[in-house]
Amino acid sequence: MVGGGQLARMSAPAAARLGVGLRLLAERGDDSAAQVVVDTVLGAPDDPAALAELARGCAVVTFDHEHVPQAQLATLAAAGVVLRPGATALAHAQDKGLMRRRLAGLGVPVPGWAPLARLEDLPAVGDALGWPLVVKTTRGGYDGRGVTVVGDAADTAVVAGWLASGAELLAEAYVDFGRELAVQVARSPSGQAAVYPVVQTVQVDGICREVYAPAPDLDEEVALAAQGLALQVSAALDCVGLLTVEMFQTEDGVVVNELAMRPHNSGHWSLEGAVTDQFEQHLRAVLDLPLGSPRTTAPATVMVNVLGGDDPALYPALLHVLARDPEVHVHLYGKTVRPGRKVGHVTVVGDDHADLVARARHAADFLAGDIDE
Amino acid sequence: MVGGGQLARMSAPAAARLGVGLRLLAERGDDSAAQVVVDTVLGAPDDPAALAELARGCAVVTFDHEHVPQAQLATLAAAGVVLRPGATALAHAQDKGLMRRRLAGLGVPVPGWAPLARLEDLPAVGDALGWPLVVKTTRGGYDGRGVTVVGDAADTAVVAGWLASGAELLAEAYVDFGRELAVQVARSPSGQAAVYPVVQTVQVDGICREVYAPAPDLDEEVALAAQGLALQVSAALDCVGLLTVEMFQTEDGVVVNELAMRPHNSGHWSLEGAVTDQFEQHLRAVLDLPLGSPRTTAPATVMVNVLGGDDPALYPALLHVLARDPEVHVHLYGKTVRPGRKVGHVTVVGDDHADLVARARHAADFLAGDIDE
Repeated sequence: MVGGGQLARMSAPAAARLGVGLRLLAERGDDSAAQVVVDTVLGAPDDPAALAELARGCAVVTFDHEHVPQAQLATLAAAGVVLRPGATALAHAQDKGLMRRRLAGLGVPVPGWAPLARLEDLPAVGDALGWPLVVKTTRGGYDGRGVTVVGDAADTAVVAGWLASGAELLAEAYVDFGRELAVQVARSPSGQAAVYPVVQTVQVDGICREVYAPAPDLDEEVALAAQGLALQVSAALDCVGLLTVEMFQTEDGVVVNELAMRPHNSGHWSLEGAVTDQFEQHLRAVLDLPLGSPRTTAPATVMVNVLGGDDPALYPALLHVLARDPEVHVHLYGKTVRPGRKVGHVTVVGDDHADLVARARHAADFLAGDIDE
Repeated sequence: MVGGGQLARMSAPAAARLGVGLRLLAERGDDSAAQVVVDTVLGAPDDPAALAELARGCAVVTFDHEHVPQAQLATLAAAGVVLRPGATALAHAQDKGLMRRRLAGLGVPVPGWAPLARLEDLPAVGDALGWPLVVKTTRGGYDGRGVTVVGDAADTAVVAGWLASGAELLAEAYVDFGRELAVQVARSPSGQAAVYPVVQTVQVDGICREVYAPAPDLDEEVALAAQGLALQVSAALDCVGLLTVEMFQTEDGVVVNELAMRPHNSGHWSLEGAVTDQFEQHLRAVLDLPLGSPRTTAPATVMVNVLGGDDPALYPALLHVLARDPEVHVHLYGKTVRPGRKVGHVTVVGDDHADLVARARHAADFLAGDIDE
C-alpha cells in the first residue's frame, strides 16, 4: 500500500486477520501507519525507486491516497506490477477536470461546470453557471484545500494566485444543497460489487467532521438512486477496490461532487457499524477475494472526527472520555497533535440517532480540548 | 507484552486504536505477533536480559502466556517494573496446585482434589476421590497437554512418567459435567471490574474448538452465580487485566476448572460480538484506563477454531469460505500449518444459534481441509 496515513494504519488489522502480508510505502518512519506496519519502505510516493522497492514481490499494489503521478504508475504497470485500482481509473480521482468530463459523459448528474484556464474568462463562466461560483484546482486538493467560493467577477484574488502558480482550474455552479451524502462501493477484478448504505457527511470548512450511517430519514428512492450511481461509476471507470462517491442531496435528488478510490473518512463508521469494515473490504476487493457483507449491524452509527486542538497530549482526555461512556469507540492515529489536524475519530453504535450524535460529538470535542466537562 | 502468539497478535489493533505503543517479547521474528508488531524484542520469556530489554521504558508489562518464571518476575518487580497482572496473582495461573488450594480456601466450588506426590499414593487418592481420576501436572500444561484421565489404580503409565521427570502432580475427581462454561472479567488497578456474559466452550481432546456467546439456554441464576464467582476470584487474587475462569456446569451449578490471566480463546467471539473486545479490554485494564462495555452486540455469536490439517496453504480455502458466506469473519494467525495446531478462528454473529454453529463450523472445517464442499 502506497501511503502512511491513518487509512493505511487502519488497514493493517484487516491484513493481519486475512493472513495477508502488508508492505507500506511511507514518507517517514513515524508516519501514522509506519508505526504499526513491520514491513515499511521509506520513500516519497513519486519516487520511482521507492515505488519499485515497494512493489517487489507484492501480488498487488494499492493506495491510501491519490498522490502517485501517472508517469510513475505507467512505469510500474509496464514492469508488470498489478495496480488496483489501475492507473486509468485512478486518473479520475486525481484530476477533477477529467472526472467531471467523464461523469457528464456517463449521464451522471453533476453540478454545472466549465474549465477555467484564464482569469479573463471568470466573468463569462460565472455569468453562464451563475454566481457564486465554486473554483477548484483539478489536482492535489483535499480537506477543503484547493477549493474556494468566488462571490462575483471582482473576487479574483485566490483564483489569480492559483493560475499564476500554473494550476489547472475547474469552475462549478454552487449547489444549494440540503445535505451531503456519500456512498461506498467495493468492486473486485472479477466484477463482484458490494455497496454500503448511503451515509450523511457533515463537512465544516471542507473537512469531514461527522458521518451518520445510514443517512437519517433518507427517502428510499433517493438511497437506491445514489447506490445505483455509485455502482454505475465504479463499473464504468473499471475501479477495482473501494470507490467513495461524495454527493450533494438537493430537492431534485443527488448530484455527484467528488470521487475517491480507496478507504475514506466517510467509511470509518463501518469498523463497528457494518459486518465488513471498509478496510477489510478494500483489501478483499483488490486481492480478488470474495467481498464481505456491507450490511449494518445496528440501526444507527455515528462517527465524529477528532481534530487537534492546542493541547498536544490526548491521553488525559482519553481517560475522561472512556470513563464517561463505556460504549464509545476511540480511534487515535498516532499523529502529532496540530490545531485542525485529523488525529483520530470516535464512533458510537446504537438505536437513537440524536443520542448517538450527542455522545460521539461530546467525546470528540473533549478529546480535541474544545470542551472540558 | 511478553509472548508472540495469536493473543498478542490480536492485541496489536487495540493498542493502535488507543494510541498506545506496544512492544513485544517474542521468541522468533516470524512468531504470529512479531509479524505485525514493529517494536519486537527477540528473546525467551525466561531470559532476564530479554525481559529487561522489553521492560525498558514501558509503563506496564503484561503477558500473552503464563511462562515467565516467578524468579524473573521478582527480578523485574524489584527493578521497579510494573507487572499487570502482578507476580502473586499470576502464580495462580502458573501453578494449578496453588490455584486449587486458594480457590478452596475462598469457598469457591472446585472438584475434589489432592496433591499426588508419589505413585504409591495413587490407589488411596483414587479411592478417596473416586475413579476415574483426572491427573494434571501443576505447571506448563495447555491445550490438553499435562492432563490425563486415570481409569484405575493399575493405569499408571502416564503418571509414572511425569513423576519420574520431576513434575508436581495434582489429582482431581472426574466431574461428570453437562457442559463447560467460561467467564471473563476485566479488573483494573483502581478496582473497576467488567464481566462478560457467560459463554459455553466445547473442548475436543482438551483443545477449545467452539465457543457460544452467550451460553445458550443458561439459567439466569447459574449465569449470575458464574459471573459472581469470576468477580470474586478476580478481586480475591488481586488480578489486574483479564481473568478467564473456565468452569464445568453440573446438575448442582458450576465448579471452577482453570484460570488464565490474559486474553483467552474463549473470548475471541468478543471481537465481533461485544461492544468492547477482550484484547482492548485487557489493555484498558492493565493501563488503568476506564473499562469498556462488555455487552453483546447481537443475540448470538459463535466462534470455531481452525486447526491445521494436511494442506499447508490456507488461502485457496479462504476464497471458498468467503464466497460461501459473506458474513463469516475469518481470523488467520500467520502460523505455519501443522496438523492440529490452532492457526485461526472464524466467527459468525446473528440471531439463530443453530444456524450460526452450522455456518461457523463449515467455514472452520473447510479451512482445516476436513471437508471439501
